[in-house]
Amino acid sequence: MNMWDKRDDMVVHEREPFNAEPPRTGLAGQLRTPLDTFYSRNHGPIPDPDPDTWRLAVDGLVERPLDLSLADLRERFPATEVTATLQCAGNRRTGLIEVRDIPGEAAWGSGATSTATFGGVRLADLLAAAGLKDGAAHIAFTGMDVSPLPDPPERYGGSITTGKALRPEVLLAWSMNGRPLPRVHGAPLRVVVPGWIGARSVKWLTRVTARAAPSDNYFQATAYRILPPGTTSEQAGPDAGISLGPIALNCDILRPDDGARVPAGQTSVSGYALAGDERTVTRVDVSADGGESWTQAVLDPPREPGLWQLWRTVLDLPPGEATITARAWDSTGALMPESPRHLWNPKGYANNSWARVRVTAEGHHATR
Amino acid sequence: MNMWDKRDDMVVHEREPFNAEPPRTGLAGQLRTPLDTFYSRNHGPIPDPDPDTWRLAVDGLVERPLDLSLADLRERFPATEVTATLQCAGNRRTGLIEVRDIPGEAAWGSGATSTATFGGVRLADLLAAAGLKDGAAHIAFTGMDVSPLPDPPERYGGSITTGKALRPEVLLAWSMNGRPLPRVHGAPLRVVVPGWIGARSVKWLTRVTARAAPSDNYFQATAYRILPPGTTSEQAGPDAGISLGPIALNCDILRPDDGARVPAGQTSVSGYALAGDERTVTRVDVSADGGESWTQAVLDPPREPGLWQLWRTVLDLPPGEATITARAWDSTGALMPESPRHLWNPKGYANNSWARVRVTAEGHHATR
Repeated sequence: MNMWDKRDDMVVHEREPFNAEPPRTGLAGQLRTPLDTFYSRNHGPIPDPDPDTWRLAVDGLVERPLDLSLADLRERFPATEVTATLQCAGNRRTGLIEVRDIPGEAAWGSGATSTATFGGVRLADLLAAAGLKDGAAHIAFTGMDVSPLPDPPERYGGSITTGKALRPEVLLAWSMNGRPLPRVHGAPLRVVVPGWIGARSVKWLTRVTARAAPSDNYFQATAYRILPPGTTSEQAGPDAGISLGPIALNCDILRPDDGARVPAGQTSVSGYALAGDERTVTRVDVSADGGESWTQAVLDPPREPGLWQLWRTVLDLPPGEATITARAWDSTGALMPESPRHLWNPKGYANNSWARVRVTAEGHHATR
Repeated sequence: MNMWDKRDDMVVHEREPFNAEPPRTGLAGQLRTPLDTFYSRNHGPIPDPDPDTWRLAVDGLVERPLDLSLADLRERFPATEVTATLQCAGNRRTGLIEVRDIPGEAAWGSGATSTATFGGVRLADLLAAAGLKDGAAHIAFTGMDVSPLPDPPERYGGSITTGKALRPEVLLAWSMNGRPLPRVHGAPLRVVVPGWIGARSVKWLTRVTARAAPSDNYFQATAYRILPPGTTSEQAGPDAGISLGPIALNCDILRPDDGARVPAGQTSVSGYALAGDERTVTRVDVSADGGESWTQAVLDPPREPGLWQLWRTVLDLPPGEATITARAWDSTGALMPESPRHLWNPKGYANNSWARVRVTAEGHHATR
């Protein structure tokens, strides 16, 4: 077993802070990702809160500030479960690094995306109990993890709009796939914001603050932004670029693996697609000839906001090298962009270009 | 003056049904489109209802069916105004036709997009008065215009989700830019669904029906779908393909015109961008060298859901031919796709590839 009870073949980008993703095939063929396989993205050392003394503050633009223990949360609010996909904004950064290097950022592949059933209470129920005041347009979260990245170091935080915060899929979660939330995933309590970048699902949560403006935490005001090429966070300053929140339409091939050897002939190809927030995935196309011809994959219907939709198809591969390409369409008829070239940005976020794996098909070609 | 009080230089695709769009420069530089310039998309002869006998039925899955005159609407519900951009799903079809011909569909250019301030009552207020029953997941609209396109001919109709129908920006409108709604735009009452394809903003409205399923009207069940290449509506049958509702991120260059001669040197370029429904436009890039280098345009902030954001910049054009390209990014960090090639579909909907105009810059090059 790897660090933090993760599987042995986890790709560990950093040990401290712990940043690791599973191989893409570890995500394949299952709605929920096992706990030992779920990716882990951190910005500082993993805290070790004592659940008996841990408290959650709800403050800011509220009528009745709250100060809650875990027992209070369980007693005062109805428990609920949500199955959601979390995706790091840096997922598929490798595709952008192939365009141009991105120094100082981890080369996340396809595995910074995972799905679990989270159990806890609705953020909306807490906010109703606290009573939002007029002008409470944003809900900010603060964790216990201290990141050395900002100067001076700062507790990790971020915010979402109140409109999103009041939606029923946004949870404060204490369980994951039916088990107590693991320490590495934010125990005793974390935020889960389905359909938004993983960075807003703050772990080791201690404070929920209603505000007029977005959080001024480094990870909201400065990081997690699509900056124009040629700028840095430091040059651009706070509030520059596109602040990421809801995630963009994306998809990936989970099986076969990139670089795999597969038998020639009928080959199963499967993966996921994810539309983010209010949208759903309506179609996934798969090509074995560089996009000259496409097969429409069988696609699971949408179930919940921010939950991936799995897809599968069978391609007929002649012997030799092939690139398998997948692309998704959303409920507005929007298609993922073809190339990562135009998506390149200084911090390497939000690569949602067409997914590609290279395979070698071996043996005789079994025609249909 | 052209037909239906439209400007003389309107591009009339068909006289009956009346289908016409303004030149792109007619839309430039103003938030609201003048009434004589607003595009008109119809599927049958323009009805001529008598406002004194006109009635609106609200029925289906409601507790209290309503039967309302125009006076009833004005007396029973608060009047409100919404400024919204309407866009035909066939807007920019010319870009798809350049990829491959689309027989039987009008070659709409960039002008099937217009913006007006609509006045009327909120659909949500009517639905509250009628009382939606459990299971009312869709709100269907029926107009008075009879289209010969379905067999047998059918009154025009369509539907939106109840979630959208209850949003404050969805109106039943009797005025447009402060004047009575023109007959060609649906008098005495039309639906306005900001952020959704224009086809759902049903004109000459007579009936609002709460339903468990989407409308089975031809224009909801069969038309206005992105079909896979190689199929037709008739082959594919009802419910095939991607049913269009919320519109995809798009932008266009409104000035200079395509084919224009402009002075070499500093040239103003302006246009609009539109993100659709829940999203906003966060950045617009403009290039004069085929995408090798980009200038970030000055972009108006988002004001209302489904209202376009105008943008402008200045490019330095050397003498000679140039292609000016524009592309928009939305609040998820998604970028419009580069090429119309991959977007081609049998009915020619939802072309949101990068916008391009070809210009000739004349005279000496004034360097900065």
